[in-house]
Amino acid sequence: MIGIITPMFEFEIVATDVRTGARVGRFHTPHGILHTPIFAPVGTQATVKALRPVDLQKLGAELILSNTYHLYLRPGDDLIRELGGLHRFMGWNGPILTDSGGFQLFSLSNSRKIDDEGVTFRSHIDGSQHRFTPEKSISIQENLGADIIMAFDECPPPDDYNYVKESLLRTHDWAIRCRQAQKQDYQALFGIVQGGVFPDLREESARFLMDLDFPGYAIGGLSVGESKAEMYAMLDVLNPILPKEKPRYLMGVGTAEDLVNGVLRGIDIFDCVLPTRLARHGAAMIKGGRLNLNNARFARDPLPLDETCICYTCLHFNRAYLRHLVKANEILGHVLLTNHNIHFLISLMKDIRQAIVARTFGSFADDFLSYYPEPSSLAV
Amino acid sequence: MIGIITPMFEFEIVATDVRTGARVGRFHTPHGILHTPIFAPVGTQATVKALRPVDLQKLGAELILSNTYHLYLRPGDDLIRELGGLHRFMGWNGPILTDSGGFQLFSLSNSRKIDDEGVTFRSHIDGSQHRFTPEKSISIQENLGADIIMAFDECPPPDDYNYVKESLLRTHDWAIRCRQAQKQDYQALFGIVQGGVFPDLREESARFLMDLDFPGYAIGGLSVGESKAEMYAMLDVLNPILPKEKPRYLMGVGTAEDLVNGVLRGIDIFDCVLPTRLARHGAAMIKGGRLNLNNARFARDPLPLDETCICYTCLHFNRAYLRHLVKANEILGHVLLTNHNIHFLISLMKDIRQAIVARTFGSFADDFLSYYPEPSSLAV
Repeated sequence: MIGIITPMFEFEIVATDVRTGARVGRFHTPHGILHTPIFAPVGTQATVKALRPVDLQKLGAELILSNTYHLYLRPGDDLIRELGGLHRFMGWNGPILTDSGGFQLFSLSNSRKIDDEGVTFRSHIDGSQHRFTPEKSISIQENLGADIIMAFDECPPPDDYNYVKESLLRTHDWAIRCRQAQKQDYQALFGIVQGGVFPDLREESARFLMDLDFPGYAIGGLSVGESKAEMYAMLDVLNPILPKEKPRYLMGVGTAEDLVNGVLRGIDIFDCVLPTRLARHGAAMIKGGRLNLNNARFARDPLPLDETCICYTCLHFNRAYLRHLVKANEILGHVLLTNHNIHFLISLMKDIRQAIVARTFGSFADDFLSYYPEPSSLAV
Repeated sequence: MIGIITPMFEFEIVATDVRTGARVGRFHTPHGILHTPIFAPVGTQATVKALRPVDLQKLGAELILSNTYHLYLRPGDDLIRELGGLHRFMGWNGPILTDSGGFQLFSLSNSRKIDDEGVTFRSHIDGSQHRFTPEKSISIQENLGADIIMAFDECPPPDDYNYVKESLLRTHDWAIRCRQAQKQDYQALFGIVQGGVFPDLREESARFLMDLDFPGYAIGGLSVGESKAEMYAMLDVLNPILPKEKPRYLMGVGTAEDLVNGVLRGIDIFDCVLPTRLARHGAAMIKGGRLNLNNARFARDPLPLDETCICYTCLHFNRAYLRHLVKANEILGHVLLTNHNIHFLISLMKDIRQAIVARTFGSFADDFLSYYPEPSSLAV
């Protein structure tokens, strides 16, 4: 046993779906309780793009993700610490989760060079050189002060067995160093299970990290180009292995059908930029797919995005108006579509929780997934 | 007497400052009462950039301006009419004012050609050719359905006496044609006084339009490059001439000091893109000037934009965070700065109304204008 103990982070399991293992829980954090399964909107640069904190509260958001890599580069974690930490800086008093920066180093920065000690990279903003180590990532995340923080990991291409196996040794070594580096007991440090699309490596990674007794486990390196079948297969591998009494977080996922499929496989926490990113591209999420408002067929459409939706956008505006905003590149278009898309995913998670408690989640999932192209064959 | 009568548009004068003629009024419209003097945020493309209608309501906005030229080109006034009119289209149930398109034809469109019948021009969006006449402008404004609509006018360069004089004949002829073209009694058609920076032409224009007995009078062609002294001089010419029992609207103005100086000279209605435009450039309006958040001195500034301000932005965020949003080009920066800037001007108008009622407007204006570079010499 290494690292500090974080007794504040109780995870109560309220109900479990016996057939699938899907569960409803309450994860306690210093800034409030997360009702799981939960979807966390992403606020990369200390803002969920286009929404104010009060809007997120009204939407029922309970957890916000923010990105360590971005905030380290701009405005700087020292500045945020000086101004009272990330919660105060961005005016969000609910729970926050920060990632470790690992994923961004491999997807965003230039000229990165990995060694066993850490990663040297150039900023995507100004090309300046920087270095992250496990200790540095934890130090930054302590400056930011999120409730849930992540171990620093390497996020390798998922389908190169030998590279993923070698990378896993490094990620596991870094997980130990992160566990040792953590100084604050008001932050829950999650380990990140890697292992690409390979069942044996995923299992090895889970068992290694479980020995370190993290207060929660993330599943990383998925939704990065592999097929949905491969992603679901990895979750099926991990579902019976990961400890039931700890929350499980599937990083960077995602679509509505992936959320349902993730919960079917025991996932408690999700995050994704999809609802905010789609909004900026003029697309609205609806059950079964998306409405692309750039399409001319919406030009005179007097219907709301979704006739059954009770979000502010759907109660007040029709598709023709929203399309006009998108075509005219008006900020309000981003605001209203983001509002709708986040409402869509948060409402979905609420429906999922209610169905699990009501012991109807199996039929709920079957029905929901029937609206999507690749449904039941992949469901448990 | 030509044109229809619009009995819905009662203008009650509640209080008058005897020294300056500044007055507090209630202008009744089909969508609600305007408390004058009033500032109208501009929603060029059927949206006040970055704000939702509910945000505008909370800010105390009572009147929104929208642009006939823009909405005619995109999405089209016929489409807006088909979808129930501009109020329903944009989800704003309060009063709306539309301009005539005249100003935009002379500032935005390409290859315009003026003749005595109208203006032929090319769209700034796609270069397509269009033609506005007085009758066409009224027809578009009837399709949009605003509460207050404007006569179609020419907006000439303000300092070429011979051209302005010639242009005035055309604008006056067009005013008659607009008055004759109007079909709806639930829209108040305002005449627009032109005349550049020339007192005799301004007086001539006012007297000509007063003979047409419009329910209100706009003052156009100012704040287009002339000096503040020239603008105030024109208002001083018109203040004793225009009928006291009709509302007066100074188009496209403006800055906080111009609002105070306008009220000092009998103006009841103002509109300007300044608060929304400054916000998009990272600037906050405060008494005495602006804060440019691009300036590095705000990087670690823990103060709100204005310590005395009670807007959502100032109650929840500091300058360092807002600067971070501006530097990172985050939509939320536009949203929060727009919210503050519009709150600033709307609060100013509320303070002005209260001071007029309390018979303290003279000292209020003296004090307020003392924060600005060119104060008392220009005040009445």
